[in-house]
This record gives sequence, C-alpha cells and structure tokens, in this order.
Amino acid sequence: MARRTKVYEGKAKILYEGPEPGTYVQYFKDDTSAGDGAKKAQIEGKGVLNNRLSEYFMSGLNEIGVPTHFIKRINMREQLIRAVEIIPLEVVVRNVAAGSISKRLGIEEGTALPRPIVEFYYKNDDLHDPLVSEEHILAFGWATHQDLDDIVALALRVNDFLSGVMMGVGIKLVDFKIEIGRIYDGDFMRLVVADEISPDSCRLWDAKTGQKLDKDVFRRDLGNLSEAYTEVARRLGVMPSNATPITKPKLMN
Amino acid sequence: MARRTKVYEGKAKILYEGPEPGTYVQYFKDDTSAGDGAKKAQIEGKGVLNNRLSEYFMSGLNEIGVPTHFIKRINMREQLIRAVEIIPLEVVVRNVAAGSISKRLGIEEGTALPRPIVEFYYKNDDLHDPLVSEEHILAFGWATHQDLDDIVALALRVNDFLSGVMMGVGIKLVDFKIEIGRIYDGDFMRLVVADEISPDSCRLWDAKTGQKLDKDVFRRDLGNLSEAYTEVARRLGVMPSNATPITKPKLMN
Ligand SMILES: Nc1ncnc2c1ncn2[C@@H]1O[C@H](COP(=O)(O)OP(=O)(O)OP(=O)(O)O)[C@@H](O)[C@H]1O
Ligand SMILES: Nc1ncnc2c1ncn2[C@@H]1O[C@H](COP(=O)(O)OP(=O)(O)OP(=O)(O)O)[C@@H](O)[C@H]1O
Ligand SMILES: [Mg+2]
Ligand SMILES: [Mg+2]
Repeated sequence: MARRTKVYEGKAKILYEGPEPGTYVQYFKDDTSAGDGAKKAQIEGKGVLNNRLSEYFMSGLNEIGVPTHFIKRINMREQLIRAVEIIPLEVVVRNVAAGSISKRLGIEEGTALPRPIVEFYYKNDDLHDPLVSEEHILAFGWATHQDLDDIVALALRVNDFLSGVMMGVGIKLVDFKIEIGRIYDGDFMRLVVADEISPDSCRLWDAKTGQKLDKDVFRRDLGNLSEAYTEVARRLGVMPSNATPITKPKLMN
Repeated sequence: MARRTKVYEGKAKILYEGPEPGTYVQYFKDDTSAGDGAKKAQIEGKGVLNNRLSEYFMSGLNEIGVPTHFIKRINMREQLIRAVEIIPLEVVVRNVAAGSISKRLGIEEGTALPRPIVEFYYKNDDLHDPLVSEEHILAFGWATHQDLDDIVALALRVNDFLSGVMMGVGIKLVDFKIEIGRIYDGDFMRLVVADEISPDSCRLWDAKTGQKLDKDVFRRDLGNLSEAYTEVARRLGVMPSNATPITKPKLMN
C-alpha cells in the first residue's frame, strides 16, 4: 500500500493511482478542516464514516441513472473511482438559507428558499473559493454553456435524490456541495458527479429538532462530530462491516 | 427650489419630484464617497461636471435608440428624468480587469478580459452590494429571465457606445456600472438605463499613458479628481456654458 503512487493529497482525502488506467483509489482521512484550513482537527473514524456514506450516496445515484465517479468500495477507508478531469467549480445547491448565503444576502438561517438555488464557486484556495456567476465561468472558459446546463440538471437531480433519502430518515437536506468531472470515451465527453457526498459536504438538520448532523458541528463547536455523522449513518442503515461498530457511538470516543 | 418635494437623497445625488407626473429632477451634489461611504469628501464642481457628462452620455444613448431615463438638462446641477422603478441591481460591464474582479479572481489589473463580462451586484448598502448570479436574481424575483436578457442586451449596447465615444478621445473604457429602471405605459413595461453615467461610475484610463481619469483618483488618492473629470469633459468637448470655466481647471482649486 505504501508503494502506490500518490496523485494528490488534499485536506480530507488522498488520491492514489488505481489498478486500471483511468481509475484512482480515494482514501478518506480523519482530518477535518474549516475556514479555509484555519481550523483543523483529527476526528477519529470520520474517514471511515465518510467513505461508507459517500459510497451509499454515489451508488444510489448510479442506480437512478445519475452518473458518478464511484466504482466500488475497497476497504474501510478506500474506494475505487473513475479518474476524471475536475471542473474547477464547487457546485452548491441550497434549499434552506444557511452559512454564506445568509451572511451575503442577509437571509436568516433556516429560511426556506423560494426554490432550490444552484451556486458556483471557483475552486481556488488562495482566492478562498469566490462565488462566481455563469458569466465568469463562460468568459474564462471553465465550462461551456452546454456544460453548465448539464451541471445544473445533474445538481438538481442529486438534490431531488438526496432530499428524498434524507427525508425518509427524518433529516432535512439544507444544502450540499458537489464537484463535477469530465470523463472522455474517445471523442465523447460526459459529466459525472465526483469528489464526495458526505456530512462534510452537506448541511443536514434533524427534521424535528433542527439538530445539526453535519460539519457545522465542527465549524461552530456544537458538540461531537463523530457522533453526528454516526447518527446519519445509523439512520440510513449504513453499517461499516469491518469498521469500529458505529451503532455504539459512545465506544468510539 | 427649497419648497420642492425631496423624493430621495443619496450619497451623490438628490431626487426631487418633477414638474409632470412620472418625472423627477435629479440634482448632482459635489459629495464624493468611496468604500461604502467610509471615505468622503466634497469635490468642488464635481456635480456640475457629472450633470453635464451624464447628459452627454444619456442623450447620446437616446439618439442611438438605447432608452434612458434622461429627458433634458435644466441647469448646471440638475436634469429632468423619467421616474422609474429601479431594479435593485448594479449592472457592471468590464472590458479590462480592475478593482474587485482583480481581487476576487486574482487577475492582474490591466489584463484585457477574454470578452466583456456583465456582472450583477445586489443594491444593498448594509450587505455591501454583494455580487449575485442570475440564479439569485431569479430565485428572489428581483428580475425575470426576460428582464435579464434585456438588461444584458442593454448593458452590452451601452458598452459598445461608451467604448466608441471614449476610444474617439483617446480613453480606454475599462468598466462601468449602470442601473436599470422599469417604466410602465399602461400594461406595457419597458426597461431603460437610469441613475447616471459619469466618471463616478466608470473606469477610464488614458489610452496612451494609462492615467486614471475616474473616481479611482479619489479612491486611491492619485491626485486631483476635479482635474481628471475636467479632462474627460474637455476631450469630449462638453463645456458647461453657465458653469465654472472647466477649461481652466487650475482656477477651480
Ligand atoms: N474522480 C476524481 N478524479 C480526479 N480528481 C478527483 C476525483 N474526485 C475528487 N477529486 C479531487 O480530489 C481532491 C480530493 O481531496 P480533498 O477533498 O481532500 O481536497 P481539498 O483539500 O478539499 O482541496 P480541493 O480544494 O482541491 O478540493 C480534490 O481536489 C478533488 O477535486
Ligand atoms: N430615473 C430614476 N428614477 C428613480 N430613481 C432613480 C432614477 N435614477 C436613479 N435613481 C435612484 O436615485 C438614487 C441616486 O442617488 P445616489 O446615487 O446618490 O444614491 P446612492 O447613495 O448611490 O445610494 P444607492 O445605493 O441607492 O444608489 C439611487 O438610489 C438611484 O437608484
Ligand atoms: Mg475537497
Ligand atoms: Mg448611486
């Protein structure tokens, strides 16, 4: 394992070259960061949970015909994915105002938005991932008009699916972020959902109590992050077979 | 004059009720502000120059069939305009990177953009006029899809016209901001260019030397703002008849 070629190490994940050309192994670390990396911690077991949860959501999307990079889970912390050319945008879908949109536009957190809002942020840590409009994306050639139409359509399908999954287990999907990648089959290019879908990249509020079950628990020091993610996994029936028994979260701490 | 009804007093202009229903008198003050009003000054004669320059640009636009709020100039500091319902957006067109786009997207000032970029900022001083995308505008109902198409078309026509005017007198039009208003004729609604077009709302660089001839002279303490604006008026042959003789800027200080 140590002799694999590392392709990229980010804040939360490592990419290794995969067994076949066009594949990567995605390794989920326990590292957690917030505020552009200003705040950091190791949350034991987080990588295991996110590996399982991202598998759960991505394979569900594959099943309903929303293409993703996910091929299969390999072990507790790793999954096999299609190597893609990442479009340098963070695609955010919001159902309820929270976080940056509340601050930027003066909308109280928790306010239902008139309809799902799709936002694009330019993936650039030095610039702190600034919000951009389609105009910037087109002018600088980060994506074409056709790409943007397809990305919005993909993002809204992911929103419908994830909203449904979450609603079924008493969780409100407030917002989420995905990345989109290009896969080339000869002359043919298609767009797939990439990166990860996990409580690191979503806002998830308990439908009854409003309790936060996502990374805001860490960002805002609201309690035990591992317990929050474990609760999401528990409700979804996502049980890491060969992992720390997440049904007994108390044992993890 | 003192008995006229004031409709609104902003940082740079005052609106009074006009002589006919559906008209306002727009009074240009000498007040100058920058950085959300953090920096303020009185620049003697600025209001006179902007009244004349906005008249010049708006009447030119009317002539080429780009509808504006401008009816006629009344005196040194005032013009008669159509009262409109202002769309709460600042519409910015950029030809060359400068100011906020340079900072946000890490593009060096002076870099030609691949094509004119149209941006929208939500007009809200408390929120510091945040950049918004079409998605936000549509979701919150600030304008319709049809409005946005029309606004972009208007903004690009203004860009073509102003670029031409400026090029003719050796000035590069780097960027500008306009506001757009709705006028209702019975059931029929049309969009017109409103507010002002002046060196307060444009970036204007001497084509040869790059010398700034706009409000950045004030924002960045680069010299005498009144002289810069006077130079623009002089090149355009805009001579305030019954105004301080702007051909001799030295006398103004
Ligand atoms: N299928 C894929 N093919 C290629 N790259 C991918 C794929 N899925 C995700 N990535 C990229 O792998 C990296 C994942 O690492 P991580 O999320 O830890 O990065 P990060 O620290 O958040 O930095 P970044 O700003 O690059 O996302 C990201 O750069 C992401 O864009
Ligand atoms: N034709 C018009 N009809 C109605 N309102 C107009 C018209 N043209 C401009 N306005 C409005 O008049 C005001 C002009 O004042 P000024 O530019 O000094 O305001 P400001 O301090 O910049 O504040 P604001 O953020 O409202 O622009 C602006 O609010 C502008 O939107
Ligand atoms: Mg990432
Ligand atoms: Mg104004």
